[in-house]
Amino acid sequence: MMKLDSAVVPPAPDFLLADWARTMRRSVLRQMIAVVSQPGVLSFAGGLPAFDLFPAADYAQAVAYVLSHDARALQYTPPYLPLKAHISQLMAQRGVACAAEDIFITTGAQQALNVLAQMLLNRGGQVLLEEIVYTGIQQVVAPMQPEILTVPTDLETGMDVDAVETLLAAGARPAFIYAIPEAHNPLGVSLSLEKRYKLVELARHYQVPIVEDDAYGFLIYEQSDSQARPPLRALEPDWVFYVGSFSKILAPALRLGWLAAPAALTPKLTVIKEAGDLETSGLTQRAVARYLDEGLLPDHVAHLRQAYRQRRDLMLAALDAYFPREARWTRPDAGMFIWVEFPRDVNCIRLLEAAVAEEHVAYIPGHAFAAPGIDAAHCLRLSFSNCPPDQIADGIRRLARVLS
Amino acid sequence: MMKLDSAVVPPAPDFLLADWARTMRRSVLRQMIAVVSQPGVLSFAGGLPAFDLFPAADYAQAVAYVLSHDARALQYTPPYLPLKAHISQLMAQRGVACAAEDIFITTGAQQALNVLAQMLLNRGGQVLLEEIVYTGIQQVVAPMQPEILTVPTDLETGMDVDAVETLLAAGARPAFIYAIPEAHNPLGVSLSLEKRYKLVELARHYQVPIVEDDAYGFLIYEQSDSQARPPLRALEPDWVFYVGSFSKILAPALRLGWLAAPAALTPKLTVIKEAGDLETSGLTQRAVARYLDEGLLPDHVAHLRQAYRQRRDLMLAALDAYFPREARWTRPDAGMFIWVEFPRDVNCIRLLEAAVAEEHVAYIPGHAFAAPGIDAAHCLRLSFSNCPPDQIADGIRRLARVLS
Repeated sequence: MMKLDSAVVPPAPDFLLADWARTMRRSVLRQMIAVVSQPGVLSFAGGLPAFDLFPAADYAQAVAYVLSHDARALQYTPPYLPLKAHISQLMAQRGVACAAEDIFITTGAQQALNVLAQMLLNRGGQVLLEEIVYTGIQQVVAPMQPEILTVPTDLETGMDVDAVETLLAAGARPAFIYAIPEAHNPLGVSLSLEKRYKLVELARHYQVPIVEDDAYGFLIYEQSDSQARPPLRALEPDWVFYVGSFSKILAPALRLGWLAAPAALTPKLTVIKEAGDLETSGLTQRAVARYLDEGLLPDHVAHLRQAYRQRRDLMLAALDAYFPREARWTRPDAGMFIWVEFPRDVNCIRLLEAAVAEEHVAYIPGHAFAAPGIDAAHCLRLSFSNCPPDQIADGIRRLARVLS
Repeated sequence: MMKLDSAVVPPAPDFLLADWARTMRRSVLRQMIAVVSQPGVLSFAGGLPAFDLFPAADYAQAVAYVLSHDARALQYTPPYLPLKAHISQLMAQRGVACAAEDIFITTGAQQALNVLAQMLLNRGGQVLLEEIVYTGIQQVVAPMQPEILTVPTDLETGMDVDAVETLLAAGARPAFIYAIPEAHNPLGVSLSLEKRYKLVELARHYQVPIVEDDAYGFLIYEQSDSQARPPLRALEPDWVFYVGSFSKILAPALRLGWLAAPAALTPKLTVIKEAGDLETSGLTQRAVARYLDEGLLPDHVAHLRQAYRQRRDLMLAALDAYFPREARWTRPDAGMFIWVEFPRDVNCIRLLEAAVAEEHVAYIPGHAFAAPGIDAAHCLRLSFSNCPPDQIADGIRRLARVLS
């Protein structure tokens, strides 16, 4: 709608924006998810937990209980200590010894990453990321306009820790190293035990903190794997900030996460978090604590693991059956994602249109996760978590038709 | 606990922090609220809605309904359009014409302020605040280390708009002017109609946006006052960003607020908001929309207005009866707060200790709300909203004993 009389044109919005806001760009990932969310399209795109596995009835009971028993549930309240105690027990299940007072409650894991980045990163400072990495961390650091150092990632053993050492030995001093050691998003790989030890040793030696994103850490499919691969925080309490989330084991709409940090930092984390949203819903904190009081989580998570493992098996079998020989992909034993790499002449951005239009199936092009300057146009991410099991094989078959 | 062997002392946390994080200070307000929150102390301190007036049962029903009828309620979801439509209707009740697509949902009003400040304010830029002002805005702008320009506030007519003009005419170009025209926190004053027109005219003329915080705008005690004092956004759609909240009319623990901004800015607001917490709880958005569908809000807000008006009347009568002649205070016709000024030789910070220890009654010293360089040690804020009506007179009488 063009207006012809320039005097009545509203002020150009960009005119008054901060420099950074004028040049910033939308998340490619979020835009793509919007594009592929069409009725009738089978989606391997979004990193969504399964709709059909949410504990809706149990959570409704927990909310009802809290609202009828606790007058403080709807008020402004300090962080809820019984929830912190529950989280401390969850951390113990992950092999991390962590007192309740070291737990800092956040409005989802995303806010934990945001608060940590604000605390650690100077404007124009350095951060160390993998070349292919969760978009949320890229959005978090963008306003600080940092120098982004990157290292490659091996699809079988995870982050290239030798490359981390090379950078640090050459004098790089990032404000932090961001790592997703368990069930990497989007790569689906878990960091080998040997590399975990080496990475925390580097953090100690060079005095560079690690931000460990363990959003998928409770979705390891084999108990033996879980014990064989402790979180980085279990290996190094002083130099690792641990970020956890209820989004993948209960529900994203709770917007409830946490971080484990030295209690001495709590006052500073509190100031930053308060500036963001004052506090995390006391109602949600109490309702989740009530759900955990009832002892419902272990069976629920066991059920999730079993369901997701089945979907992963179906997708891997379909990939083996239908996908071209020249492609290679990860074989995750945790989380929600499989990463596929094609030869460099395949363009997964361009092929997405055909996949949606002709075969009614969607994925996320690898491009969406690439750090600045990295090329991942020949890659794509598949999510197997939110797809009916009986549709996975056919969806992969249709996708293979487009990609071949 | 001092450790003697320096080799085992964990790394000094400050060592690795960003420059700003090293020097930042805790909110005086939040610290004071913690200090005065003691059993047996009658509190006029926190800006809390009344515990006894939360619609807990109705909200529990809304949550239960949503969880049993909407499979998307626990999932990652885009902003919930029916809620935006409801908010657009609420805005119309405030006299603001605003399409649903101009509504941007936030995790409480605090996040709305945060997102706007990030979008508008450059590091080291200018902002224009009142000398005495809501602490949350001070926390929001602090990381940008801005030059804070201040103007005084008249206890009867609100912000000194002539002082705003003097600053702008002398060349000041703040990224935004922050205003709480209705039921100022902490002053309890509402901006006169004449000043409202002048303020938006200045914004237009000097092309400086206003951030209008209307957190208390639905708690105007007389309908006639409400019509006589439209929000700034009703007078000037282009240069006013309106911030609203469900915290004071439903419950703070929902962490649900909104801002009204040109739809053209939504992509930028979205990027900033996603970096903060990805999205606002889809469950909460749906449950509040359901509560509003049921038509329960008008009666609830009418009940709140009646209850708060009664508490205000009791407190004003007690102040008239017991407080020293040399003190002066605001007579709010909206919101939750009364502001008291004593002669300059009275120190309300020091007297707080005696008030709590000897008379078991608490308030917030005005100091907590002072912009940098402003002295408000002789002032205090009283909140009448969360105090049993039958205890208000006696509490004010006891407080007067300490202050006289």
